[in-house]
Amino acid sequence: MSLIDQLAGDLSRLPGIGPKTALRLVYHLMKGSPDEARRLARSIRDVADRIHSCARCGNFTEHELCAVCTNARRDPAVICVVEEAYEVGAIERTASFRGFYHVLGGRLSPLDGIGPEELNVATLLERIRAADGVVREVIVATNASVEGEATAVYLEAALRPLGPRVTRLARGIPVGSDLEYVNGSTLAEALSGRREM
Amino acid sequence: MSLIDQLAGDLSRLPGIGPKTALRLVYHLMKGSPDEARRLARSIRDVADRIHSCARCGNFTEHELCAVCTNARRDPAVICVVEEAYEVGAIERTASFRGFYHVLGGRLSPLDGIGPEELNVATLLERIRAADGVVREVIVATNASVEGEATAVYLEAALRPLGPRVTRLARGIPVGSDLEYVNGSTLAEALSGRREM
Repeated sequence: MSLIDQLAGDLSRLPGIGPKTALRLVYHLMKGSPDEARRLARSIRDVADRIHSCARCGNFTEHELCAVCTNARRDPAVICVVEEAYEVGAIERTASFRGFYHVLGGRLSPLDGIGPEELNVATLLERIRAADGVVREVIVATNASVEGEATAVYLEAALRPLGPRVTRLARGIPVGSDLEYVNGSTLAEALSGRREM
Repeated sequence: MSLIDQLAGDLSRLPGIGPKTALRLVYHLMKGSPDEARRLARSIRDVADRIHSCARCGNFTEHELCAVCTNARRDPAVICVVEEAYEVGAIERTASFRGFYHVLGGRLSPLDGIGPEELNVATLLERIRAADGVVREVIVATNASVEGEATAVYLEAALRPLGPRVTRLARGIPVGSDLEYVNGSTLAEALSGRREM
C-alpha cells in the first residue's frame, strides 16, 4: 500500500471523515509545506503520548491530576457528574460552574453490557464518602437521552443515602431557538419547568 | 497552550474542518487507543517526509519517477495535462486512460500573477520535443472554469506548432444527473457536442 493510501485510510477512520474527504486532506497536506504536516503529526503524537485521565475525576490531563482538581479556588461543595471527559470542556467554556467534576466514562446501557461496574460510579461514591460531608450537591449532567436519564435515576438512588442534594440540568428551550422548531418533549419540559419572571 | 488546544488548532487549519470538528477529532483520538493516534501521526509524517513531485511529470511519488512514468506498458503517444497532481488520481481511478501525465501545478490566473512561467509549461513542451514525434496527442484536462479554459486555449496555441493533436475533455451532462438540475451552459455544451446513437 502506498503512503498516500495508508494516510487516507488512517484519516477515514476518524469520525465524520469519509474516503473522499480523507483523500482531500491528504492532498492538502501534500500541497502545503512539509513542516506544517510534520507539526500536525507531532501534535497528534504528543496527545497520544501524554494525555491521560485525571487520577481523581477522570478529566483529560497531562499530569497526575487535572487543572480543575488542582485548582484550590474551586468549590469542593459541588461535584458535576458527566458521561465523557470531553464534556468537561463544554461546561468549563460556559464559565458558570466553579465546583469539581467526575467523569463516568459512559452511561448505563444494559443492551451493550454497560452496568454501574463498567462506569466510574464506585469512585464517585468513595470521593463523596471520603469528603465527609463537604460535598453538599451533586449535579448529574448526563445527556438528555434515554440512557442518560436512566443513568441519572440510578445515580440519584445511589447518592441520596450519602447526604448531598442531587440535581440535574434544566430541560427547556435552547437559547436563541424558535418555539416552532423545538420538539414536543422539550416544549413539554419547558412548560412544566417554567419560572417566575 | 495545552497539547489539546495545540492539536485542535493544527487540525482546524485543514480544509473543511472548523474549530468544533477539530475538537471532536481531538476527543476521538484521546478516547481511542494511543497506538491508533500514533499510527496516524506516523502516516502524516511519512507523507510529509517522503512524498514529492515526479521529476518527469509532476505527479506525487515516493521515488525519483512516479508509478505512471515508470510503467513500460503505458502508451507514450498520449500525454494528459492536468492542473494539480491530485487530479492524476481521479483520472487513474477511471481506468480509462493508458497514456502519461503532465502536471501544470496550477492554471493561468493573471490577477494572481500566475503566468505560463509559473506553471510547468516549458517542461511539457520540452518533453514533447525530446520525444521527437512519438507524442501524437495531448489531452488538455484542465478544469471547466474560466481560468481552466484560458489555460487550455493558451496550451493549444503553444502545442500546435510541435505537431501533436490537442484535445480537451468532453463537456456535457454528468452521468446520473437530471436535465432539470444541470446548469444552462452545461446543457448548451451537451447539445452542441451531441453524438450519433
